[in-house]
Amino acid sequence: MFIAKIVGSLVSTQKVDSMIGQKLLLIEPYRLNEERTAMKTTGRTLVAVDTVGAGENEFVLIVQGSSARNTPETKSLPVDATIIGIVDSLHVDKQKVIL
Amino acid sequence: MFIAKIVGSLVSTQKVDSMIGQKLLLIEPYRLNEERTAMKTTGRTLVAVDTVGAGENEFVLIVQGSSARNTPETKSLPVDATIIGIVDSLHVDKQKVIL
Amino acid sequence: MFIAKIVGSLVSTQKVDSMIGQKLLLIEPYRLNEERTAMKTTGRTLVAVDTVGAGENEFVLIVQGSSARNTPETKSLPVDATIIGIVDSLHVDKQKVIL
Amino acid sequence: MFIAKIVGSLVSTQKVDSMIGQKLLLIEPYRLNEERTAMKTTGRTLVAVDTVGAGENEFVLIVQGSSARNTPETKSLPVDATIIGIVDSLHVDKQKVIL
Amino acid sequence: MFIAKIVGSLVSTQKVDSMIGQKLLLIEPYRLNEERTAMKTTGRTLVAVDTVGAGENEFVLIVQGSSARNTPETKSLPVDATIIGIVDSLHVDKQKVIL
Repeated sequence: MFIAKIVGSLVSTQKVDSMIGQKLLLIEPYRLNEERTAMKTTGRTLVAVDTVGAGENEFVLIVQGSSARNTPETKSLPVDATIIGIVDSLHVDKQKVIL
Repeated sequence: MFIAKIVGSLVSTQKVDSMIGQKLLLIEPYRLNEERTAMKTTGRTLVAVDTVGAGENEFVLIVQGSSARNTPETKSLPVDATIIGIVDSLHVDKQKVIL
Repeated sequence: MFIAKIVGSLVSTQKVDSMIGQKLLLIEPYRLNEERTAMKTTGRTLVAVDTVGAGENEFVLIVQGSSARNTPETKSLPVDATIIGIVDSLHVDKQKVIL
Repeated sequence: MFIAKIVGSLVSTQKVDSMIGQKLLLIEPYRLNEERTAMKTTGRTLVAVDTVGAGENEFVLIVQGSSARNTPETKSLPVDATIIGIVDSLHVDKQKVIL
Repeated sequence: MFIAKIVGSLVSTQKVDSMIGQKLLLIEPYRLNEERTAMKTTGRTLVAVDTVGAGENEFVLIVQGSSARNTPETKSLPVDATIIGIVDSLHVDKQKVIL
């Protein structure tokens, strides 16, 4: 899994039937900076489905691949990235990482 | 999933039987620019099958891996990338992203 | 999927039983150049099994991951990359791409 | 699989039900230095579930993808990275690699 | 699949039960040099299980992902990379590639 920030959303009217009603969010994978004190963007842009009610600018936990279908909401969907949790805090060496 | 632009198409006569009649499109994964105001190419080139009737120069949503087989049209195909939607618009901080 | 050029072959006598008799080819993933007029190598080297009778210096279509097992010839093999078609031509903006 | 160092942990209260009670750890994939005498970070940050009781600053073995569900503890979880062992030592040319 | 060189080994006593007795090897993916006359390291470090009796400094063929479980020895293991053959020789333009 990896940590990402929700940076936006996507509108698609012409799509696969099973995806109708799914919330699609633009996410950017983040990583620790060199000092491991804060998170910084990797600059990549992906799209994930949301199952936990996450909102813009929140940090979330993303699962990829076939495991992205391992939630009750996504099990028959053509998705390869699912938000499975909202990140409250990250800790390195007992210090809180800046999000 | 990720966002890609359809940049071309591919002709292949000698191929696996199950792929006969499948529309194969050349796509380029795109990502947000640093200001998150527009999409720009990653420079990579991939091939995806189309299930939604997408056309050249359109931005589409791509699913990869085993989930690419999770649509009625692709379920028994040897494919690892499927177009599952046409992107109408992307939004970051309530602003429309330039496509 | 992605487009690759067949650049060579591999000989392995000591191998998993199910792979005996499989043709293993050295491939290089290719991508469009910046003008999208020709294909150029990515510099990476992979190995794929051939199911369509492709030969050295040909451009082929490669499927990766679990879908690489979705052909009659590869379904029980330990393979993650299969050649599923020979590329006749690529087209961008109604122009033929130089292979 | 790859070798990673556990650098921290993650707290998430709002998450998929099946993930309640799972220990989520921040990990950094490591690789050999050019002389193959010590391990160094790749600078990437991932999140893995722990099944072996690993702790911060330990080097661990990570399995990714669908195989991350191939342990008794993870088999029905939406996870794509699992710690399957704690690394005691690495050896290159009969020399111990510095961890 | 890809070609890798076995550069070392890994000792792990505290691990998932199903991995007890499995030989774990440190591998480096290799690729062709620009002239396609010799193989050179990519600098990455991975870990694979061995099913063919390969030894240090040998070049081997690696399968990744769910297909890594498609051998009799690995089918129920939490592994994502398996050695499926020892490379005897590589050929480009009818010339032997230097290993």
